[in-house]
Formats: sequence, C-alpha cells, structure tokens
Amino acid sequence: MNKLYIIKIGGNVLDNEKALAEFLKNFASIQAPKILVHGGGKIATDIGNQLGIESNYIDGRRITDSPTRDLVTMVYGGLLNKQITAQLQSLHCNAMGVTGADGNLLRATKRPVTKIDYGYVGDITPESVNSTFLYFLLKQNITPVFASLTHANGEILNTNADTIASVLAISLSKHFDTRLIFCFEKNGVLKNVNDENSVISNLTKELYDKLLKEGSFHDGILPKLENAFAAIQSGVKEVLIGEHSHLLANTGYDTRGTLITLQ
Amino acid sequence: MNKLYIIKIGGNVLDNEKALAEFLKNFASIQAPKILVHGGGKIATDIGNQLGIESNYIDGRRITDSPTRDLVTMVYGGLLNKQITAQLQSLHCNAMGVTGADGNLLRATKRPVTKIDYGYVGDITPESVNSTFLYFLLKQNITPVFASLTHANGEILNTNADTIASVLAISLSKHFDTRLIFCFEKNGVLKNVNDENSVISNLTKELYDKLLKEGSFHDGILPKLENAFAAIQSGVKEVLIGEHSHLLANTGYDTRGTLITLQ
Repeated sequence: MNKLYIIKIGGNVLDNEKALAEFLKNFASIQAPKILVHGGGKIATDIGNQLGIESNYIDGRRITDSPTRDLVTMVYGGLLNKQITAQLQSLHCNAMGVTGADGNLLRATKRPVTKIDYGYVGDITPESVNSTFLYFLLKQNITPVFASLTHANGEILNTNADTIASVLAISLSKHFDTRLIFCFEKNGVLKNVNDENSVISNLTKELYDKLLKEGSFHDGILPKLENAFAAIQSGVKEVLIGEHSHLLANTGYDTRGTLITLQ
Repeated sequence: MNKLYIIKIGGNVLDNEKALAEFLKNFASIQAPKILVHGGGKIATDIGNQLGIESNYIDGRRITDSPTRDLVTMVYGGLLNKQITAQLQSLHCNAMGVTGADGNLLRATKRPVTKIDYGYVGDITPESVNSTFLYFLLKQNITPVFASLTHANGEILNTNADTIASVLAISLSKHFDTRLIFCFEKNGVLKNVNDENSVISNLTKELYDKLLKEGSFHDGILPKLENAFAAIQSGVKEVLIGEHSHLLANTGYDTRGTLITLQ
C-alpha cells in the first residue's frame, strides 16, 4: 500500500509565523499523499477578546457556546485555514482547505447533554468520515487541510483536532499505509515532564499500560496518547509525537520524538 | 450539453436569516449541477466595526488593506461560507465551501498599483479557473460554494463576487449549457430605478448599447451588466438578473427578472 501522512499541528506552530512557514515548507516537500489537520491558537483568543467573547470552561473542558462556535468557524475555518492553503499553493502543494461540512467529509453527532452541556461540540468516529470522497481527492493529488470543525443537522460543530487526525488516520488505513504525526511543543512523550531529554523513543502498548498504572503521564499528554493508541489499535501503522522541526526536516520524518507502535 | 446553474447572492440574501434559508432550500432543490457564489454582507461590516477595522474607499471603490483582507477571509471564507455549506448539507445538497485558493480553483493577479492602490484585490479572467478540477467536482455531484476570495503568491485576495460568478460561467461553458443568475435586491434591471415595475424583461446587446448611450442605467447596475455581457459574449447561454425568490421558486428559474441574451 502507498504511504499516507496525516499531520496535526497546534498553537505552538500556528502562533509563530516563522515556525509555520518552516513547517509548511517541510510539509509541502513530502512527496507522498498527505493531510494536514490544524486547530486554532492564540489568534482565536485574541480576536475573541476583541469581540468580547469569553472563554467558558467546566472542569477544565472548554464549552463551545454560540458566539464561541462562530469565532472558531471564522478563525479556524476562515482565517487560518485559508492562509495555510494559500501558502501551500505557493509552495506547489495543491492544498484544499476544508471543514467536516465540506463534501460531507466529517459528519458528527452533537455531544449529548449530560451533567455538562459542552455546547456546539461534535463527536466523531471513524465511521463519520466520507473516506470515499477523501480517497478520491487524494488520488487527484489534492492535499486536504482540515480545520478542526465538523457538522451535524445544518450546523458547524467544534471538534478536537487530535481526534480528527486520529479518526481520519483510522478511516484511511484501509487504503493507505498510514502514518499519524502529532506535532506539539515538546520533543516527544517525556518520562519526566520537566526534562526535555527524557523522551520515550518507543512507546508500545505494554509500556504505555505500565506507565499509565504508575501515573507517569502528565494530564496534558493523556488525550493525545488515547487518540494515538486508538489509531494504532485500529489499523494505523505508526504514530509519531514530537516537535515539528525534528519530525519533518528532510526525510518527512525521522526517529526523533516518540514512536508509538503496538508492539 | 447538460445544464449548469451558477448563482450569485449578495448582502440582501445573506443578511436576512429567513431569506437565506428560503434561498438555500430553493437552491438545494435544483437537480442540475450548480455552483453558488456569495460575497459578504452587513455581518462583515459589524464584525469589522467591533474589531476597529475601518472601511477605506477611494473614488467609491473599496480598498482592501491588510486588516480588511483578514476580516473578509474570516467572515466570507469562514463564517458565512461554512454556515451555508452546513445548511446545504442538511438539505441533502453535497456542498463544498471553497475560496479560489482551495484546489487552486481561482488563481488571480494582485491588482497592479496605478493611481490607486486597491490593496489585496485579485483580478481574474476565465483562464484563472482550474476548470478541470471544478468539472471533476461537479461530476462527483459536489456543489461548490465560492466565497469571493482568490489567491496569488501565497496570499488570499479579495475579488468581486459578480466577477467570480461570470468568470466561472465563461470557463465552464465549454462543458455545460451554462445559466448565470445574479440575485439582488431589485426585481430585475429597471428602466426607471425608482419603479420596481419597470423591469426590462429581455435585454439584448443591441438594447443594452442603446440604453447605455442614453445614460439610462443606474451606476450600481453597470458592473453587473458588464459582467453579464462579458459572460454572454463568451459562450454563456443566458444571464438572469433579479430577486432571488422570483428567480428560484419552483422551477429553478422562470422569466420574472431580466433575461440577458445576445440577440
């Protein structure tokens, strides 16, 4: 099977013009089919502040009320997504900026209200992906650039970008030998969150379960690891977690960072 | 050849939630291949005001400075484009929201600085259109929804929505029997701008040239008529100008409004 790279970037790349330009140059140079997934960043918070839209959190989870949903639709789906797409075009990468609503690529379920009403948040599974159309775009040498937005019942919903990347990777692993890459601010999954040199270079399911029991992981990394192992256990070949300039320089990726494999 | 509808809507539809919902319902019910083109509306001005972005005009032409470009990228390319796309999905129309940067659909030239620097404005011709890819999307039963944005040299540019609709129609007239429909606030092209009952039902090139010489047209309608005749003279079958609810009710279009033909 052909290789497919699915690469997720977040605030640490998006908020830094130079880092983003460097990342996009490396990303565009990957010759294999590829998909970019991005969330938002400081710019969404800044514009939200200027528009008087307050961030609401319950138990540390962000609530997407109606003004926040419009904000992320504008900033993730408009400003950032189209800036990235235009930049990739100038790097001879035929990018296509999309949300889950476009071409019905990601049909979500609005998260049910239980103790918490998360608001306009979309939950997705690998079955949410219109993989036929996505495969078809990739075959046309199009590089989809996903903003972290999905849709249900005529409405745009906010969805975690790591989850989108993971779900896309699982869904496309029937067509491709899929590599999922999570770029973030650290060099990889760290044994000691305060020591950038403590990168776990290979994290197997066995080691993960052991370290999880020991309570070794920092809270921030846990959702990322859950998405990573969900992918690995559902057909994705490899997941790589680390800092973008280490992961994407030259060869598409190298072994710096944490490589997550089943065994 | 198969029919293709290219329909442009502006502020009078976009600014009114009920009118937009009615328009989208009628639009979704068109069975033939179709493309929607939209500009912005009052919402862009409102958000711009909240963000302290001032509108600049020189000789009545809007100047797109850098903050204005970011504003329209957010509001046209993000908020409005994705709201429309999600609504069309719920109406079983497989819409795909795009700008000219996406899939390199509309590659523009940044308008050269002469006496006036229009800023981030993109000029396009029928050759700007990636008609191969657009045709291919239409064949997949995808309905492209264009925000009035194009790209050049890695940057998003602001482009007149009427011009985009006209250029798309010309470019696709080699594949389809193309009908271009401009929806606006009036019932059609009026003989007397103050009399909604003075609609010119059929405007040929001969009549247009005659009325133009007599100075019969209101300034506001002239760019629309220029785009309409540019289309008609370059292979587009018919152009229809008028109020959306008259043009799109039931049959896709009827003869209310102004029908523009060569002869």
